Amino acid sequence: MVSRAEFTLGQLAEALGATLEGDPARVVRGVAPLESAGPDDVSFLTDARYRAAAQASRAGAFVAGADVTGLPAPILTVAAPQQAMIDLLLLFHPAPPLLPGVDASAVVAGDARVDATAAVGPLAVIEAGARIGSGARVGALTYVGPDVEVGEGCVLGPHVTLLAGARLGRRVLVHPGAVIGADGFGFAFDGARHRKIPQTGGVVIEDDVEIGANTTIDRATFGDTIVRRGTKIDNLVQIGHNVEVGEHSILVAQVGVSGSSKLGRGVVLAGQVGIADHVSVGDGAMVAAQGGVPSDLEAGGRYLGTPARPAMEARRIFAAESRLPELLQRVRALERAVEALGGGPLGRKGGAR
Amino acid sequence: MVSRAEFTLGQLAEALGATLEGDPARVVRGVAPLESAGPDDVSFLTDARYRAAAQASRAGAFVAGADVTGLPAPILTVAAPQQAMIDLLLLFHPAPPLLPGVDASAVVAGDARVDATAAVGPLAVIEAGARIGSGARVGALTYVGPDVEVGEGCVLGPHVTLLAGARLGRRVLVHPGAVIGADGFGFAFDGARHRKIPQTGGVVIEDDVEIGANTTIDRATFGDTIVRRGTKIDNLVQIGHNVEVGEHSILVAQVGVSGSSKLGRGVVLAGQVGIADHVSVGDGAMVAAQGGVPSDLEAGGRYLGTPARPAMEARRIFAAESRLPELLQRVRALERAVEALGGGPLGRKGGAR
Amino acid sequence: MVSRAEFTLGQLAEALGATLEGDPARVVRGVAPLESAGPDDVSFLTDARYRAAAQASRAGAFVAGADVTGLPAPILTVAAPQQAMIDLLLLFHPAPPLLPGVDASAVVAGDARVDATAAVGPLAVIEAGARIGSGARVGALTYVGPDVEVGEGCVLGPHVTLLAGARLGRRVLVHPGAVIGADGFGFAFDGARHRKIPQTGGVVIEDDVEIGANTTIDRATFGDTIVRRGTKIDNLVQIGHNVEVGEHSILVAQVGVSGSSKLGRGVVLAGQVGIADHVSVGDGAMVAAQGGVPSDLEAGGRYLGTPARPAMEARRIFAAESRLPELLQRVRALERAVEALGGGPLGRKGGAR
Repeated sequence: MVSRAEFTLGQLAEALGATLEGDPARVVRGVAPLESAGPDDVSFLTDARYRAAAQASRAGAFVAGADVTGLPAPILTVAAPQQAMIDLLLLFHPAPPLLPGVDASAVVAGDARVDATAAVGPLAVIEAGARIGSGARVGALTYVGPDVEVGEGCVLGPHVTLLAGARLGRRVLVHPGAVIGADGFGFAFDGARHRKIPQTGGVVIEDDVEIGANTTIDRATFGDTIVRRGTKIDNLVQIGHNVEVGEHSILVAQVGVSGSSKLGRGVVLAGQVGIADHVSVGDGAMVAAQGGVPSDLEAGGRYLGTPARPAMEARRIFAAESRLPELLQRVRALERAVEALGGGPLGRKGGAR
Repeated sequence: MVSRAEFTLGQLAEALGATLEGDPARVVRGVAPLESAGPDDVSFLTDARYRAAAQASRAGAFVAGADVTGLPAPILTVAAPQQAMIDLLLLFHPAPPLLPGVDASAVVAGDARVDATAAVGPLAVIEAGARIGSGARVGALTYVGPDVEVGEGCVLGPHVTLLAGARLGRRVLVHPGAVIGADGFGFAFDGARHRKIPQTGGVVIEDDVEIGANTTIDRATFGDTIVRRGTKIDNLVQIGHNVEVGEHSILVAQVGVSGSSKLGRGVVLAGQVGIADHVSVGDGAMVAAQGGVPSDLEAGGRYLGTPARPAMEARRIFAAESRLPELLQRVRALERAVEALGGGPLGRKGGAR
Repeated sequence: MVSRAEFTLGQLAEALGATLEGDPARVVRGVAPLESAGPDDVSFLTDARYRAAAQASRAGAFVAGADVTGLPAPILTVAAPQQAMIDLLLLFHPAPPLLPGVDASAVVAGDARVDATAAVGPLAVIEAGARIGSGARVGALTYVGPDVEVGEGCVLGPHVTLLAGARLGRRVLVHPGAVIGADGFGFAFDGARHRKIPQTGGVVIEDDVEIGANTTIDRATFGDTIVRRGTKIDNLVQIGHNVEVGEHSILVAQVGVSGSSKLGRGVVLAGQVGIADHVSVGDGAMVAAQGGVPSDLEAGGRYLGTPARPAMEARRIFAAESRLPELLQRVRALERAVEALGGGPLGRKGGAR
């Protein structure tokens, strides 16, 4: 997406609270990483290890921390370069303007309440009793079910599905294809068939949560499935019924969290991690990619593997596994040597080894 | 979802076939689990291990098995408490009323046949030759392709996609975002490029199957991909072309079943399990979460791990893995001791160990 | 899907460039595999190991390689039977006719450019600045965002989402529910909360790529996420921001590729494989199902397991794992025997073993 903005370095210094070393009248028209930036772009060093790349960069200016000097173009010196990079991107790529109003092709129930400052896209469906808050955007072809609450400033992509009674706080961002509030997966076998356990609960998504494309978050059997504020969920993630995800957690793509599990605050689950049901994951615990978690994890722990083990232990096991075929041979040699020394019995079963 | 129903305990006893110990005129207005139930709720004990929670519960009444007595509120005694809980939930949360008819905004082909008792939601699309059975519900924004058959009493959520020729039996429940009948994944490399193998078969979903949100079930190359009656499939599951899933099976979220594999009756695949192609899984086999199944599994077996092994064996291996780093040290110590005794050669490769 | 075509064997011989052994006037009406073919069907032998099945087949004719003779019905002899099977399927199951034009129920922005030979289905939404190429098909309920480019001959299923600025080459096939161009998953923690890093890049899908149902391909933070020509992607796959997938690669269902990873040409990732971020996978490398790839893989390598190891090594480790519980016992027996011989110290920790 091409930026159409332009700023002088002086304007940027003011906007970012930066100290400028260089010409304040110089104009830049975009933001780009070190390798691809040209003379019209401002680039950024978020870490000192990129200094060589910065020296080689053709960027027209740099945003960098106080420890960085002597680059080939003017420097905007800031306290927190990565945060300044975000500010910069927001300057050059502001959110598209909100055009309030309901598209003529949308189907909105008579008693739904759409705030006058909200925007509803083409062919969206908003059912009875739903409420769309101020400044919210409902994408094209999105379904907002009965009695759903969409808070102030939410952005629902196209093709989102919010089922009956789901409640979204403020500034929740839901990407296309996400399904919030489908039935939890609960059955009771009656001897002949699996009877469905009616899923009578709801889903609560708190403020500032982001939900990835084609992610699914099920409604609770009773009570609510809850995703607490500030948590970011990637694409194709599954959150089962009655799960509670704590504040400011990170769930990377294709993670699955089974029913009734509780994740603490600041938990990080890397891609494809699976959490069994009724598991408790402590605050700040981190599970590496593809980990499988059958039981509770301690706060602050780093975990790896299936079954998930403390990362240090798991790494030792992975390393030892590489030597396992060799180890079998060494044990065989030991057995021969001990037998030759007259030791034994070694209790080995017969057969080729 | 708040219930708007209310019942006396006498009415509930009659509806559930329960024996009531307590006041039949007492009124309850909802169903809730032991911890969250209040005096207006009926709660339930599905297992004796919850007795302490029941003693502490504020519920206005309990549904419980014959072995339970002495709770702090009236008891509705039943033979099968979990089944009674389902009956109770259905009493308090009946399916929303079916309002037959096709929404004015839906796009229905002239020669599609929609039963007069079926309901088609806003902005649904029903293509030529499709048939919608009696009492079926087609959700908003749902796509029913050419010549698709949707049986009596099916419920298709919003945003469902049924592609050309898919056949659904009776009372099939399809959650939002599910895609049934997309092309199987088949290509033949011609030396320069992957040529697509046309996927000319169909998909058959038998009676009483449930299909989760954003799940994908591909059409067959030839013949049909089949999901047999009573099987329940969770969210984000992938079923490849020409797969056959037996009756009354359970496939938990994010499971993947590769092309041409056959699952028996009553199979249970826990979350994130993967089944390779052309694999046969025997009746009643169970695979634990994240298991990877490269080859056939026996009926009734319990499997774990990747590659999936009988669960007992896999658990022993997992336990032994934890001791692997220590084992390497013990073998090293043995080698030193045997060498000190004059044994050998031990055939170790040189170098640090 | 039932074929409505019929051909004489003479016509087929000509269309396939085959040598016919048998009656050129014989008529066939469908294509079917050996086991299910009837006298009206032509079947095929793509490999000599199916010869017994061919002998038992009721097919009315066979397509087979030059090494095959003596089957119970006429043979169409070809150089490449699997390619001929595809040609055969295309003859009997041609693509449905393209009916150019925009359905009256679609919502198309005034300045979108839809080629006169393209077809836009019911309730599709095409936003401002989008371009739909000649002969392209846009499915029902599909969303084509602002400034999206859809090349000549593309086929977008129903319920596809292409977000702002996504660029598709020619003959790209996108199955239902796929989401192309959602935001990459990038945040920077500012000490109190995860701030979203604006995802300002795009997505480029080159010619002849196929994208499976409910697959998600994220836009880049800067620059483009790229899927190169001829690559085939199955259902429920996740491609993160700034990923580059090389030409003619194969990504099977539920694969996840994390941000900024680069896959070479002709890479094959089997089902549920996960690739960590910033990983480079060499040309032609193959990773077996459920493999987890934390670091670079060499061109042409075969890999297995988590962490992915060269397949031969991983298989030896898997085999050795099965013997791990037994190995523990053997080491214990060795320790006893060595102690009995007066050897030691063995440095074992005390306790039950």
